Amino acid sequence: MFVYADNAATSKVSPAVLDAMLPFLKDTYGNPSSLHTMGQKAAEHLLAARESMARHLNCEPKELYFTSGGSESDNQAIISAAKVGARRNKKHIITTAIEHHAVLHTLAQLEREGYTVTYLPVSSTGLVTAEQVKEAITEETCLVTIMYANNEIGTILPVKEIGAVCKEKGVYFHTDAVQAAGHIHIDVKDQNIDMLSLSAHKFHGPKGVGALYVRSGIPITVLINGGGQEKGKRSGTENMPGIMGMAKAFDDACNNIDANAAKVGALRDKLIAGLSKIPHCALNSDPKLRLPGNVNFCFEGIEGESLLLLLDSKGICASSGSACASGSLDPSHVLLAIGRPHEIAHGSLRLSLCEYNTEEEMDYILQEVPKVVEYLRNMSPMWKDLISGKKNFTL
Amino acid sequence: MFVYADNAATSKVSPAVLDAMLPFLKDTYGNPSSLHTMGQKAAEHLLAARESMARHLNCEPKELYFTSGGSESDNQAIISAAKVGARRNKKHIITTAIEHHAVLHTLAQLEREGYTVTYLPVSSTGLVTAEQVKEAITEETCLVTIMYANNEIGTILPVKEIGAVCKEKGVYFHTDAVQAAGHIHIDVKDQNIDMLSLSAHKFHGPKGVGALYVRSGIPITVLINGGGQEKGKRSGTENMPGIMGMAKAFDDACNNIDANAAKVGALRDKLIAGLSKIPHCALNSDPKLRLPGNVNFCFEGIEGESLLLLLDSKGICASSGSACASGSLDPSHVLLAIGRPHEIAHGSLRLSLCEYNTEEEMDYILQEVPKVVEYLRNMSPMWKDLISGKKNFTL
Repeated sequence: MFVYADNAATSKVSPAVLDAMLPFLKDTYGNPSSLHTMGQKAAEHLLAARESMARHLNCEPKELYFTSGGSESDNQAIISAAKVGARRNKKHIITTAIEHHAVLHTLAQLEREGYTVTYLPVSSTGLVTAEQVKEAITEETCLVTIMYANNEIGTILPVKEIGAVCKEKGVYFHTDAVQAAGHIHIDVKDQNIDMLSLSAHKFHGPKGVGALYVRSGIPITVLINGGGQEKGKRSGTENMPGIMGMAKAFDDACNNIDANAAKVGALRDKLIAGLSKIPHCALNSDPKLRLPGNVNFCFEGIEGESLLLLLDSKGICASSGSACASGSLDPSHVLLAIGRPHEIAHGSLRLSLCEYNTEEEMDYILQEVPKVVEYLRNMSPMWKDLISGKKNFTL
Repeated sequence: MFVYADNAATSKVSPAVLDAMLPFLKDTYGNPSSLHTMGQKAAEHLLAARESMARHLNCEPKELYFTSGGSESDNQAIISAAKVGARRNKKHIITTAIEHHAVLHTLAQLEREGYTVTYLPVSSTGLVTAEQVKEAITEETCLVTIMYANNEIGTILPVKEIGAVCKEKGVYFHTDAVQAAGHIHIDVKDQNIDMLSLSAHKFHGPKGVGALYVRSGIPITVLINGGGQEKGKRSGTENMPGIMGMAKAFDDACNNIDANAAKVGALRDKLIAGLSKIPHCALNSDPKLRLPGNVNFCFEGIEGESLLLLLDSKGICASSGSACASGSLDPSHVLLAIGRPHEIAHGSLRLSLCEYNTEEEMDYILQEVPKVVEYLRNMSPMWKDLISGKKNFTL
């Protein structure tokens, strides 16, 4: 059996999305900046895509900018707010310890340029409260950037409440919604969001395209200068097939959001219940207050990487955390932030599901993971130390 | 008849390129950063694409970075060289007056940040000489950025000679090769190029993807921080379908470069010969020393925009210059730079061809353009002034 359970890393382009892209990879190939009919037809489709996505986010089409993906959106949002801050002599930014590297590394760059960043600690389930944000805001704060939902442990953060605090204090609020968009309800107005990043390939859209919402009136810093596309804020010929695919994927995801969440949430709950029976394991984050498709466990006494490779040999695609950081030998900064010790954090497994997964696939995962965990533990010196009593169990 | 003669704005994805993309929009959808087989399979394809493109450019695969397109590549190259310059107290950049806006607007931003930019004047055919570059280089020069071929008038610049001067003087040389790549031979080593930008959709690849070559040893400034893709220099999940399409398109273009240039050059020459018969017109740039597919004329006494719209009604897709600047009412900065007066520059027509164009299409263009020019002149107050002798003809 083959089971793709790494949808938080990237997801399959749906057949309907591919169908929406194909005309723009075939005969409707005009450049939206061209004056002729073919160009203007492209421009009309571009506008329709922007309107459709804006409707689902509850923003104006002119507040939505198409980018090359979530990382670019995160970078542009943060740099934009930072530049506004610098002009007002406000160079303090608030974030959390569990953000994606697109946020953390951009902030690290700003720190090198003289900005101060507060990294709010998170609870054992990965939460920060609006109260924490309120207490951290100073006269110098120009931006709060806090993710909508965590990519590794699936925690959904109290974005609306955090946004309300920021609104009250007059501080810009950006949220990296790359894992949330298309999976849980987003309403930028109701949820007090000033800037929001999303990425198409996390909700069955294509790779290489994303969007940035910026509330009207917030000055945007341009990262890519040129022909003046995207109202002068993001140049480069528009990625028409990608944008058309993203808009279709977002439309499908938003139109089916409750049904998908119910279905995927049930699969998730089944996995969580089953995997919890493995001795000396722990679910990371809360069983319920998490993304519908996110399952993340630590298993004591094993290495996550070996676990992944053995599961792969059984046809199960999973992750030990963020795909982006997989080249690194360091344990996940998210698992460390929720209090997992270094050794435990190394033994993590993320299974991320989507609506294409099935009950049968969950049964297969529940059959294979315990066997692989046991097999690895039997070969593990760490495990021998634990069962012999030389070391104490943590989980 | 329908004739697409706006290939410099964007080109049709070839069926072979679409075929190369489709697996990555269907079942081969892994994230190259994922450890499992699906991810590693994607990583292998990514490497193969990089190797293939590097081979055609004569650089090392590790010197090639995938980006979202030509504009991003231009921005990153220029900013990178500028930052190196700043660290060495060298804040002078040399360019030409006819660069693409992705270069000019990035330089304008650097000027606002305290850099000095020399805009070399060009000849009546859009040329600058290596001698001009040599004379402009000072102790403070950190970068020469000069395009490989002009997007409006097709002039091919003496990149190899300019590169040799830069090498001799120890100054970085970047070339925006967006219009050249896939159309004329590029060899970054032989042509002394330190940095080069290209864009897939100009050679029958998809929109939304490009590449930046940076010679090993040149420090790169990161525009998009995050998961550390592209050796840490350009984050964001790799646009696999786009990159696969670009590599295939570049391979096809480079493998057929001489045959395509011969075919397209013959169509171009036919158009140039035919359109030259229209009274009071002038070819912009040299008849031969230009991109194989570029035709650009000025017609006295008419507005380029009206010409385009009437040609569009006849099924002919053309441009008045750069698609990117089409929203603007200003005449082309390129035509002004080669000495066309303001009024003449307004009456320009760019026809950009590719190997899919046919003789029959050229015949159709040669039949329709003179009629449309005559029609517009008959309604034009400018033209009445000219033929009545109230004003003198320029062309």
